[in-house]
Amino acid sequence: MHVSLPDGKQLELPQGATALDAAQAIGPRLAQDALAATANGVLTDLFTPLPEGAEISLITKKNPGQAQSVFRHSLGHVMSQAVGEFYAARGYPAEAIKRGVGPSIENGWYQDFDLPEPLREEDLPEIEKLMRDIIGRNLPFSRREVSRADGLAQFPGDPYKRELIEGLPENEPITLYQQGDYVDLCRGPHFPSTGRLPTAFKLTSTSGAYWRGNEKNPILQRVYGVAFASQKELDEYMERLEEAKRRDHRKLGRELELFTIDPLVGKGLPLWLPNGTVLREELAAFLKEQQFQRGYQGVITPNIGNLELYKTSGHYQNYSDSNFSPITVDDEQYMLKPMNCPHHVRIYDSKPRSYRDLPVRLAEFGTVYRYEQSGELNGLTRVRGFTQDDAHIFCRPDQLKKEFLDVLDLTVLVLRTFGMNDVRFRVGTRDPENDKYVGDAANWQLAEDQIIQAVEEVGLPYSIEPGDAAFYGPKLDFVVKDVLGREWQLGTIQVDYNLPERFDISYVGEDGQDHRPVMIHRAPFGSLERFVGILIEHYAGDFPLWLAPRQIAIVPIADRHNAYAEELRAELHRAGLRAEVDDSSNRMQAKVRNAELSKIPMILVVGDKEQEARQVSTRERWPDGHRERKGVSFDELKAELLERYTSRS
Amino acid sequence: MHVSLPDGKQLELPQGATALDAAQAIGPRLAQDALAATANGVLTDLFTPLPEGAEISLITKKNPGQAQSVFRHSLGHVMSQAVGEFYAARGYPAEAIKRGVGPSIENGWYQDFDLPEPLREEDLPEIEKLMRDIIGRNLPFSRREVSRADGLAQFPGDPYKRELIEGLPENEPITLYQQGDYVDLCRGPHFPSTGRLPTAFKLTSTSGAYWRGNEKNPILQRVYGVAFASQKELDEYMERLEEAKRRDHRKLGRELELFTIDPLVGKGLPLWLPNGTVLREELAAFLKEQQFQRGYQGVITPNIGNLELYKTSGHYQNYSDSNFSPITVDDEQYMLKPMNCPHHVRIYDSKPRSYRDLPVRLAEFGTVYRYEQSGELNGLTRVRGFTQDDAHIFCRPDQLKKEFLDVLDLTVLVLRTFGMNDVRFRVGTRDPENDKYVGDAANWQLAEDQIIQAVEEVGLPYSIEPGDAAFYGPKLDFVVKDVLGREWQLGTIQVDYNLPERFDISYVGEDGQDHRPVMIHRAPFGSLERFVGILIEHYAGDFPLWLAPRQIAIVPIADRHNAYAEELRAELHRAGLRAEVDDSSNRMQAKVRNAELSKIPMILVVGDKEQEARQVSTRERWPDGHRERKGVSFDELKAELLERYTSRS
Repeated sequence: MHVSLPDGKQLELPQGATALDAAQAIGPRLAQDALAATANGVLTDLFTPLPEGAEISLITKKNPGQAQSVFRHSLGHVMSQAVGEFYAARGYPAEAIKRGVGPSIENGWYQDFDLPEPLREEDLPEIEKLMRDIIGRNLPFSRREVSRADGLAQFPGDPYKRELIEGLPENEPITLYQQGDYVDLCRGPHFPSTGRLPTAFKLTSTSGAYWRGNEKNPILQRVYGVAFASQKELDEYMERLEEAKRRDHRKLGRELELFTIDPLVGKGLPLWLPNGTVLREELAAFLKEQQFQRGYQGVITPNIGNLELYKTSGHYQNYSDSNFSPITVDDEQYMLKPMNCPHHVRIYDSKPRSYRDLPVRLAEFGTVYRYEQSGELNGLTRVRGFTQDDAHIFCRPDQLKKEFLDVLDLTVLVLRTFGMNDVRFRVGTRDPENDKYVGDAANWQLAEDQIIQAVEEVGLPYSIEPGDAAFYGPKLDFVVKDVLGREWQLGTIQVDYNLPERFDISYVGEDGQDHRPVMIHRAPFGSLERFVGILIEHYAGDFPLWLAPRQIAIVPIADRHNAYAEELRAELHRAGLRAEVDDSSNRMQAKVRNAELSKIPMILVVGDKEQEARQVSTRERWPDGHRERKGVSFDELKAELLERYTSRS
Repeated sequence: MHVSLPDGKQLELPQGATALDAAQAIGPRLAQDALAATANGVLTDLFTPLPEGAEISLITKKNPGQAQSVFRHSLGHVMSQAVGEFYAARGYPAEAIKRGVGPSIENGWYQDFDLPEPLREEDLPEIEKLMRDIIGRNLPFSRREVSRADGLAQFPGDPYKRELIEGLPENEPITLYQQGDYVDLCRGPHFPSTGRLPTAFKLTSTSGAYWRGNEKNPILQRVYGVAFASQKELDEYMERLEEAKRRDHRKLGRELELFTIDPLVGKGLPLWLPNGTVLREELAAFLKEQQFQRGYQGVITPNIGNLELYKTSGHYQNYSDSNFSPITVDDEQYMLKPMNCPHHVRIYDSKPRSYRDLPVRLAEFGTVYRYEQSGELNGLTRVRGFTQDDAHIFCRPDQLKKEFLDVLDLTVLVLRTFGMNDVRFRVGTRDPENDKYVGDAANWQLAEDQIIQAVEEVGLPYSIEPGDAAFYGPKLDFVVKDVLGREWQLGTIQVDYNLPERFDISYVGEDGQDHRPVMIHRAPFGSLERFVGILIEHYAGDFPLWLAPRQIAIVPIADRHNAYAEELRAELHRAGLRAEVDDSSNRMQAKVRNAELSKIPMILVVGDKEQEARQVSTRERWPDGHRERKGVSFDELKAELLERYTSRS
């Protein structure tokens, strides 16, 4: 057989040759240094037969980073072996440890276990120590193909491995990988031996995970690890992780009293505390102003609807997994609304419409309810009830592109207002092989083309994702990157030729005939819950003045300045600003520090001098640190603050 | 036996004597003129035996208005007889007409029928004609007491009469009244004969009504009539009725496109159209500003809650009739929230509270859902889902009265803002004979006393209504009278010592010990749906500028002024005002009339002169008519409008 090398050279090798054979054919030194390889661009290991005619490239210890997913997966096997040794040392037989899946993932790997007693977080360092020990033993990895019967015989007491083997298609080879006495069912690839693996790894956490992700199955313990080619990369990663923890919206949400989740009220149903409510209402006010200027009209619709409504729209049939169970009222059935669209369509249809009335842009901060498995719930970013900044634009086909562009413009404006400048679009189109879509192919094509044209005009990066459309139309999602480099999917814009059809809505055209309008669904924030969750992490709780739930702290230096402080507070409050006085018995420095810890952006300190001259000294958050000013006229400062507040600067 | 007359005179009469006997004893002229009487202040007729020793007073044709409920009830019998004759003339046997109840009501009476074919609105004038004919026949009314068996024998084919007779207590006399050949089961009282009845009556409408108000029973046809002692009174009443129809919020809601109710979305679940949404959001913004100034904090809570929450609060047990059926989520049960209080209590309890933190005033425009029978639903004023301008104040016992007074002050301010100056309070206290109330009697007494003290201090009229309290505490409702003299129950304030107990919430007092806070529930609007419904009727749709969904209509005199009109519109719109241009092909007068019919309070007319000088001519709604101004500077007008808008004047 032949393979070709990166420089174009051809190698002749015996049938069934591996990347190790190829390396040896080039030279013994390379064979010694090789860790893994790519064949036709796909990572492989040194044990797996190469495909005939493959273009191959060897990965050596000089650039192990090119084989990250390989060494992460191998470290997963090492961890799995170490867990076995951990329980063996505690007297458990090998059969007592059963194993689910264990893939490499972004930054590391995980492995699911069914253990005789759960691993505790405190056990992880000992597992790490055992892993380093196994690496020290430099056990070679080996690969073998086996028959189904031999595969099953390998795991007599492990129902998970057996289920996996039984689920493999007839024609797929069954491969086992082994290092030392540890054998696992695995597709590979792996490093040549444990001694070649990087030691820049760390076990980070454990969690529960249902076998095959199904709530009806047993719950396994999942152990996560991270690994990098160098200690420097691991350190940087751990730092980012720490920063992400510091910014965790659940933690900040608790500390800044933004929201709480109360099991007695319900899982996945956040209660917005006063500070979070201010934040959310500032966001809504900002968007409502924009929408008023752009000719949107507000509507308000109930949180439930007759089941017939959702059968007409198709939501009942097509989203059954996320629907809550129906509510019986007399002889009718109702459901918590999963989406606002059917309600808005009925409002459109509540009176005759002429071509001159279009576009009709109906906007609602609509609270919807969708079922999520309890294991999936997470703070504000994954909930069971949330409020969409929803709008539906009903327009003539000839108005579609202009309306779509205006929505894109609004979306980009919204994101830039929050300093989210790293935006890309994802255009979700039909998967032509799937038949879940309603409506005809020509309309789909038209809508997809118009979305792509509009995105091209805006000039921001985009990708096309076939199969990512909603069942009723193609969509455009926007993804922003935050300061930690994490990507967040935010809002969505969808073109819909189908709901107008299902509800048989129309307008009278210039020709006096009935025509079908096109619908655009759009939500720049997406969900207020999710957006606020992301915003908390984006700002690490340090919100700009206009958004900050607590805007101004007034710190009297001594008790005798309390009355003056209260006078200023009342004046700021009357002007609509959120101000408070710290009249506690703490010393001035402690009060200032407390205000800073509470992330209040503007602190006014008042003492004798200030009181005499109706002045304040200010200490405020400022890009890259703080800014302090002394002897500022209070009236000028009030005007400045009001201007900054109302202009959202 | 003896009876006494208004002048103190005593009459001696034979045992079982009636008011007619008394009249005859006084004089034959009085016996001829008498229509009815009162015995011990209760209306009675001339046929019913008087109680021994009664103080009686005779009602004659000089003041028939004193016996309104009597002649209204007699007219009901006349109508019932006329309906019998109506169907007899159409060939139906008498047994084919069955009758439910038929009491006198405010301004008239109604009678329920089970008819072989329904009466149409168009049939009512013919029934009226038959009634006048029966009055012309001057048929005497007669009364007789019968045995149960004779009573049942009287109505062999009428299941309703039979059910009524069978339901009468053993010791109660069964009486029949008869005029001509028409006999009805009736307690009376009645006029002496049909010829003595006033002819100032009118049949107004028919509707469906379940037998005994129960949805499981057959539906009967209810026919309504009104009657007065004089034609003048009837005319005035009909005028008020016309005016009420003209102001009907369902009619205006449709015409002004404020809301719609769509059976596909659900009964009793209004959809707020763009114009209604503006109105509702203006109300909310107004109250939010007030609340911000008064130290309330906003919160937002979900529309559902775990059943355990409502079991803890007691709503589940105590309001089972108005609860919607539970929603099953995994192994938990949830319910649409009927009230916001439990959610707010949990927010209070989400962190430790100190005596220094109190009062905590949590406010939410919270949408709640309560079951109402479909027959009870009515536009915006009786719905199944509505949004309360709800707040809960958690305070120390020593803060209660001050907080209660502040709530009263806010409430009166709110009502006066809408020109609702005729306000009275209704203090709902416990009914000591009923055991539905939770919590201990001493706390109830304390709360009732403090409410009454506060109301006394405010100095507005109030009444005490025993038995009208909520199950968890005494309450104060406010009732306003509208321009038509109709009374509306609006919002409510409730003191609650019980929910804090049930949820075991506390604060740390100055003494370092745990204490129980007191809760005030309050909602000045009550429900936004209901308040807007009442507001529509109160203003007859002529909303003041700040509330008007469509504030400013700009009317270009000719097409060449369209661009100038649009320029002004855009400027007003940018300033946050709701302005529109009528660029239709109508003539100027028609455009102005259309704007007036749409109840737009401010109309700007622009022609050549205005355009040249950047001026407008205005025509606006003004107390008692209109006001017109010519050649007004646009910039000055814009400033004036903005000032009127933001000051809500």
